[in-house]
Amino acid sequence: MRDKQKTEKKIDVWMVGSIGIDDVETRTASRKNLLGGSLPFATISAAFAGAAIGAVGVVGRDFGSAFSNRWKHFGIDLSGVQRKPGPNFRWACRYDDNMIERATLKTELGVFADFMPELPAAYVDAPFVLLGNIQPALQLHVLGQARKPRFVTLDSMNLWIDIARPALERVIAKVDLLVFNDGEARQLTGKWNLRDCAAEILKMGPRYVLIKKAEHGSLLFTKKDVFIIPAYPVKVLKDPTGAGDAFAGAFMGCLSKARALNTATLHHALVFASAMAAFCVEGFSIEKLERITTADVAARVRELRKMAALK
Amino acid sequence: MRDKQKTEKKIDVWMVGSIGIDDVETRTASRKNLLGGSLPFATISAAFAGAAIGAVGVVGRDFGSAFSNRWKHFGIDLSGVQRKPGPNFRWACRYDDNMIERATLKTELGVFADFMPELPAAYVDAPFVLLGNIQPALQLHVLGQARKPRFVTLDSMNLWIDIARPALERVIAKVDLLVFNDGEARQLTGKWNLRDCAAEILKMGPRYVLIKKAEHGSLLFTKKDVFIIPAYPVKVLKDPTGAGDAFAGAFMGCLSKARALNTATLHHALVFASAMAAFCVEGFSIEKLERITTADVAARVRELRKMAALK
Repeated sequence: MRDKQKTEKKIDVWMVGSIGIDDVETRTASRKNLLGGSLPFATISAAFAGAAIGAVGVVGRDFGSAFSNRWKHFGIDLSGVQRKPGPNFRWACRYDDNMIERATLKTELGVFADFMPELPAAYVDAPFVLLGNIQPALQLHVLGQARKPRFVTLDSMNLWIDIARPALERVIAKVDLLVFNDGEARQLTGKWNLRDCAAEILKMGPRYVLIKKAEHGSLLFTKKDVFIIPAYPVKVLKDPTGAGDAFAGAFMGCLSKARALNTATLHHALVFASAMAAFCVEGFSIEKLERITTADVAARVRELRKMAALK
Repeated sequence: MRDKQKTEKKIDVWMVGSIGIDDVETRTASRKNLLGGSLPFATISAAFAGAAIGAVGVVGRDFGSAFSNRWKHFGIDLSGVQRKPGPNFRWACRYDDNMIERATLKTELGVFADFMPELPAAYVDAPFVLLGNIQPALQLHVLGQARKPRFVTLDSMNLWIDIARPALERVIAKVDLLVFNDGEARQLTGKWNLRDCAAEILKMGPRYVLIKKAEHGSLLFTKKDVFIIPAYPVKVLKDPTGAGDAFAGAFMGCLSKARALNTATLHHALVFASAMAAFCVEGFSIEKLERITTADVAARVRELRKMAALK
């Protein structure tokens, strides 16, 4: 947290997002008070790429030091995380038997309702930025504090397409890559075919559009090309929560360590991201991520490359 | 047809399946009296691999010479196609706006109801066999007439899982590869995770299981490995009818021309099959397949390999 930790190393990527305390129910388990929100999943997954990550978020008084310590254990810089006296953001959901649909049982914004993200001085020159799914106006606010980021990725959600479209379009125009799932891409553009969706979004500003299809992998679009990114076929899916955040975070972490920015390095980073997302869903909250090593990740990336016959 | 054509070349693959006259409705078009059924799609797609294909099926009196001529134009041997005096198998469907779900509007079996497939002598020694989706008992009957096929692929459908499971299990035990879509694999095994489904099916006899996920590609399973096969992202989807048949047929056609049978040649054949399936859905019936050349197919295979970064 800001008051307890000094930034020690040069930040490669900063990420802004939610920090939650989650309850998750599945067919076989019911777990309460889990570390959740997009930011822990994204930053921890990025750290597995060896990147120096800064987190920008807010926690409440009930966000205990046990959570902070587990998070910091991955070497994440938390100096951008504000601590406020109100209650933490809390969220609860129940997954259907097939782990595909989920019902949100509770959303208590708490201190997240008044969140005004501020960039620590040490993050201002960081070359990579992941704008996690928060209000588009806040994404614009915090992005405006960055000096000249080399590559900005934007995540968002259906809610902002519905209620904050003008602000969302302003931030879309400022980023290098937009990441959406297939439903969001269709909602934003009114098109069905994902190539048509991507073509519309590319007209709005970004150089790249990444469309996620959960267990079916993802598609990376440029104005000229389409790349098909495989998902890793998970053996035991315990909790899908955070998979998309782990994917986006791992992608940015890996990209920030690449020598160049081109479709080849983006592709490589996306395969790495698929591997991390697969680990994420093999445990509740960040539990599986706490049990794996960089060697495990490297092995899974190799396995996925072999499965998909990648060059 | 049997009475009009003599078998001239050594058959690489014979395929059995339905031969239909289809009506197809989509949001933007309504087309009647189209050449349909699994067999024309499968055999024509296989022919693009340069394989010598024999067709085993039945047509009625209303299956005109225009249909036969368009079919024979691809060099398919039709000496295994019986002509009967009754009406041809007819089928009609309407696709939803997104071309994902379809409602069957009409199924008139006609001569297909009494179909008893018989293998022409010239097919008996053919090394490759595609048992298209017909009654499992008939698949067993016709497979029993083959001498010693090197590689047999089986396609089936949910109906036979429901009403003819014992016969279906007997034929599954005799084949090298079972091809199912994800829903069928789940229905057959009672499992949800596709790796679990495949593991169950592999216990039933086949060396390989291929699970199709439509526009999301497919997964090839062996007891040891999983391979992820990309689908080609189609720009304009006109009519999904026959895509699965084109896929299975093209796969077998390509495999029959491979120097060896191993996961590498299977993978190669599946990428070829994805390309052919994509062409198939770009037109009604076989119309797009009638407008492309082997050079177009080669170009699409190259494009797909590049999109998926295949080695």
